[in-house]
Amino acid sequence: MKQTPKSELLKQLDIITDKARSLIGKGKVADYIPALAKVVPDQFALALCDLDGNVYTSGDANKAFSIQSISKLFSLVQAVNIYGEDLWQGLGREPSGQRFNSLVQLESENGVPRNPFINAGALLVCDRLESRCSAPNFQLLELLKSLSENTKLRVDHEVARSEMEHGSRNAAMAYLMKAFGNFHNPVEKVLESYAHHCAIEMSCIDLAKAALFLANQGQTLNGREILSALETKRVNALLSTCGLYDEAGEFAFKVGLPGKSGVGGGIVAIYPGHYSICVWSPELNVAGNSLAGFYALELLADTLGLSVYL
Amino acid sequence: MKQTPKSELLKQLDIITDKARSLIGKGKVADYIPALAKVVPDQFALALCDLDGNVYTSGDANKAFSIQSISKLFSLVQAVNIYGEDLWQGLGREPSGQRFNSLVQLESENGVPRNPFINAGALLVCDRLESRCSAPNFQLLELLKSLSENTKLRVDHEVARSEMEHGSRNAAMAYLMKAFGNFHNPVEKVLESYAHHCAIEMSCIDLAKAALFLANQGQTLNGREILSALETKRVNALLSTCGLYDEAGEFAFKVGLPGKSGVGGGIVAIYPGHYSICVWSPELNVAGNSLAGFYALELLADTLGLSVYL
Amino acid sequence: MKQTPKSELLKQLDIITDKARSLIGKGKVADYIPALAKVVPDQFALALCDLDGNVYTSGDANKAFSIQSISKLFSLVQAVNIYGEDLWQGLGREPSGQRFNSLVQLESENGVPRNPFINAGALLVCDRLESRCSAPNFQLLELLKSLSENTKLRVDHEVARSEMEHGSRNAAMAYLMKAFGNFHNPVEKVLESYAHHCAIEMSCIDLAKAALFLANQGQTLNGREILSALETKRVNALLSTCGLYDEAGEFAFKVGLPGKSGVGGGIVAIYPGHYSICVWSPELNVAGNSLAGFYALELLADTLGLSVYL
Amino acid sequence: MKQTPKSELLKQLDIITDKARSLIGKGKVADYIPALAKVVPDQFALALCDLDGNVYTSGDANKAFSIQSISKLFSLVQAVNIYGEDLWQGLGREPSGQRFNSLVQLESENGVPRNPFINAGALLVCDRLESRCSAPNFQLLELLKSLSENTKLRVDHEVARSEMEHGSRNAAMAYLMKAFGNFHNPVEKVLESYAHHCAIEMSCIDLAKAALFLANQGQTLNGREILSALETKRVNALLSTCGLYDEAGEFAFKVGLPGKSGVGGGIVAIYPGHYSICVWSPELNVAGNSLAGFYALELLADTLGLSVYL
Repeated sequence: MKQTPKSELLKQLDIITDKARSLIGKGKVADYIPALAKVVPDQFALALCDLDGNVYTSGDANKAFSIQSISKLFSLVQAVNIYGEDLWQGLGREPSGQRFNSLVQLESENGVPRNPFINAGALLVCDRLESRCSAPNFQLLELLKSLSENTKLRVDHEVARSEMEHGSRNAAMAYLMKAFGNFHNPVEKVLESYAHHCAIEMSCIDLAKAALFLANQGQTLNGREILSALETKRVNALLSTCGLYDEAGEFAFKVGLPGKSGVGGGIVAIYPGHYSICVWSPELNVAGNSLAGFYALELLADTLGLSVYL
Repeated sequence: MKQTPKSELLKQLDIITDKARSLIGKGKVADYIPALAKVVPDQFALALCDLDGNVYTSGDANKAFSIQSISKLFSLVQAVNIYGEDLWQGLGREPSGQRFNSLVQLESENGVPRNPFINAGALLVCDRLESRCSAPNFQLLELLKSLSENTKLRVDHEVARSEMEHGSRNAAMAYLMKAFGNFHNPVEKVLESYAHHCAIEMSCIDLAKAALFLANQGQTLNGREILSALETKRVNALLSTCGLYDEAGEFAFKVGLPGKSGVGGGIVAIYPGHYSICVWSPELNVAGNSLAGFYALELLADTLGLSVYL
Repeated sequence: MKQTPKSELLKQLDIITDKARSLIGKGKVADYIPALAKVVPDQFALALCDLDGNVYTSGDANKAFSIQSISKLFSLVQAVNIYGEDLWQGLGREPSGQRFNSLVQLESENGVPRNPFINAGALLVCDRLESRCSAPNFQLLELLKSLSENTKLRVDHEVARSEMEHGSRNAAMAYLMKAFGNFHNPVEKVLESYAHHCAIEMSCIDLAKAALFLANQGQTLNGREILSALETKRVNALLSTCGLYDEAGEFAFKVGLPGKSGVGGGIVAIYPGHYSICVWSPELNVAGNSLAGFYALELLADTLGLSVYL
Repeated sequence: MKQTPKSELLKQLDIITDKARSLIGKGKVADYIPALAKVVPDQFALALCDLDGNVYTSGDANKAFSIQSISKLFSLVQAVNIYGEDLWQGLGREPSGQRFNSLVQLESENGVPRNPFINAGALLVCDRLESRCSAPNFQLLELLKSLSENTKLRVDHEVARSEMEHGSRNAAMAYLMKAFGNFHNPVEKVLESYAHHCAIEMSCIDLAKAALFLANQGQTLNGREILSALETKRVNALLSTCGLYDEAGEFAFKVGLPGKSGVGGGIVAIYPGHYSICVWSPELNVAGNSLAGFYALELLADTLGLSVYL
């Protein structure tokens, strides 16, 4: 990585933002639930946090959006905290090579999801949290409030309800895991919890701050240990191999950072030892990742020489 | 990464070697071809090169073994050199989520292999080399001789012949790609080339030296550019998401380095900016990766704090 | 078919029964639900109805057993009656080539089950009945009482409850169809209906009589039209290509009659223009079909020269 | 079946031909090899043989066409003759539920083709013939000449060559079976034999006459036993469950006769005890079966009441 003075860094972010915005109009806002389809498409924002506590932004980085699958990163962190190594009984850590919501592999692999970032895996994580937490939804929201230092974070209940109403495929996965004895709580209850996680609203600044501990060996800047160093390495490894739906390989190839995306258009990326980053733009590419957001991260990685692989 | 004095580093390598050797007897030497099944199983070696030109070893690091699929890394490097971006027409860069020699995905994805490290992808790379090189086998061997500074490298022709004789599944893949118009040269010829690549013999020292440029932004210590920095990042990214058969996720999770394994029992790993590493032990785990070798790299990563994800 | 006098026919049935009973002890009673696992395994019975109203039996042909998937035949008949051609919107009529309870094909074929005899297809038939019948369970039982001329037919409620409790995989299928918009009623309600169908208890005589209209161009011996001749041909065709789980091909090859089996150990077979037959023996082969029952039908077909293919 | 006087039967055939011809223009001539793509599309013919030696025709029933996959029926007959029961070692008899030229199932089922009518199965049959026949191509042609009483039957060598040149997918299947040890002869040689079988040219009259023994318990009208009665039943059963690519279920549902189709536009059907039938029209439906031919058989079955299922 090149050393970049702060003013220069901000300038670079603005240039990147301009370039990335040129893709707006070429993607497609998620429309599988009506509540998401309503979002204004031509938005873009970017926030980058360093380990000195600085936050660099470009675009409307305070604008809250639906975090959707980015929640899977934080529910995994919760579950790693509670279960440690035991979490991986009945849960894999390999890329799936399939669509994020596919059932075929779940069937042929006896109800064991390939990793915690495909839907089946995230549902299993929610099932495990349900077994041990008194109020899993509340607790995830509290964790995110604390990490992002934003007490106003909230769930968009219309989105949550909409997710529930269009959740038949997730129900199918949960029941299939149950048929294999790998799902322990009532399906309806876990689906509700999952829908609430997806419907949390956060801004780029919120998310970059919330993920910063992953760039800092598991600790917040205040020295609170969220994960151990070893657990942090492992979560980042999972983000690298499985974090971007069926474009994880492409993201590693072009960007080269651990990352997690959501169909709300957000992508969180980690440059261990240096930065946490969040980009947001609602239009998605065919793989379900933010079109302009992905490109912005590629430009950022190339311009600033950020990549774990170099 | 912790700073480790040289004498301390050597001591660590010996401790790791001792621990890793404890797994010998619990794996299984590759036996799909008779020529490989004959290897003495209880061997272990390790070599680590730094960017100052030092080579640290443990065990019989000068003992040559069959590099097998590790050759896929170097034939990819050749092809990237010749084709640049065009190489990726007809070749993916996503983890497959399937066994390395599976045909199912190749069929459903119209003859486009998921990545260059599954067999189908490596065969396609050999096909592309065949189209542009006058003598692809000779040229790969020359590249490896030059990178490893060992002019005595050779092909084990008994192994190559044995590979050819047991190559029906590879022939099936090649013909399937041909059926989709994604394979351009005579199948027999490309299979022969591929078999010769797999049958090259190298030691841990040879391989660690040969791969060092991937830890050095694409350059040899003499300043010869093998790949550009961007290409190097990309090859390392591919190694990270696809390099260890269907254990790439596990390798990222436990080791956290770009790597490539072969059924001869070798694994090459890269710690960008610092080290190239090669371990070797012939007994394999169920995924086809060296049992003791994988474990040695895990110990090395944990002990020395090597991981791209932390 | 050879002409066989009645006394000779009865003698043949007894010989066949003796031979078929020799397989008892070599199969395995269905144990996926506790209520079925309790059945006494060494039982065998056979009943054959001709178009003159004669009933020929061997073994305990009055003993009632759980009809299980044989119910799928009769719920299909109900649905054909109600929907006619429209039934086939969203429902295929091809052999699946997969296990009867597999989800993979349902996923890749957009929630359209291959045929009405795999679980997904039978669930869809129940869903369709639910849409149009005021009391689908009651009505199926009434139909069976009427066809078998046995007003005492009943549902084993313990078996039905047990089916419901172990119905997660069926729930997964139903939700997956719902996700594709091909399932219209509440999943729980349809599963309950389906479980009740499977838990109906009938004897070989009951079932042979109930299926006789399929040998008589759709009419009962009293002249009541259950199906039109064309519909009858079509139901028999479906039985021939899809009626015996993933052994439909084998059953055609060895027996050569339209048939439907259930994991309760019953198999119904039709020799159009001549006979309906029901055999029962609780032990199953690996495909889930009655071991002795399948063999008895093979002997019957060979001895009496019954086969639609000759 | 209704009794139909001869003159009436001929009239019916003409009416059916008229109706079926109305579909011409709505299908698509096979174009995967240039030699087939040249055929004049708006042709239709029909021939029906009864057990008294009468031949009824409509359209240009003497016009020879490429029999393509209909050859699989006759090479199976040859192999049943030579191998008897042993043929089924390494060869299934279940519908595949997949496209006729798919590899996925072959891979997951260890190189054992589901049935002799998908490409993999037919290639295996040719491999077995290669092992035991001195000149398998010559011998199949001789058999067909003899059965059809037409000594002028010939192979279209341009079509055969074209098949060979576009045979990569078949080569892939053969090599995959070889990889599982279920293919014993040189791939090239067997592919050549297979291509020659497909390229045989016959007319509707030739084919109906050649298949008549399947309606006559395995015997020609001269009393020559081609197959035993049991073998005949079994071949007809296989035709019924697997004979029309992935429309075997539909063909049973709508027509209700054992049948075999080819991409040359021919379909042979058997009404055991009564008729053999051949229809031909080059335009295919999406499943690769003759569009007008399939419809003609449906009309024929409905009009004359021909169906094994009624």
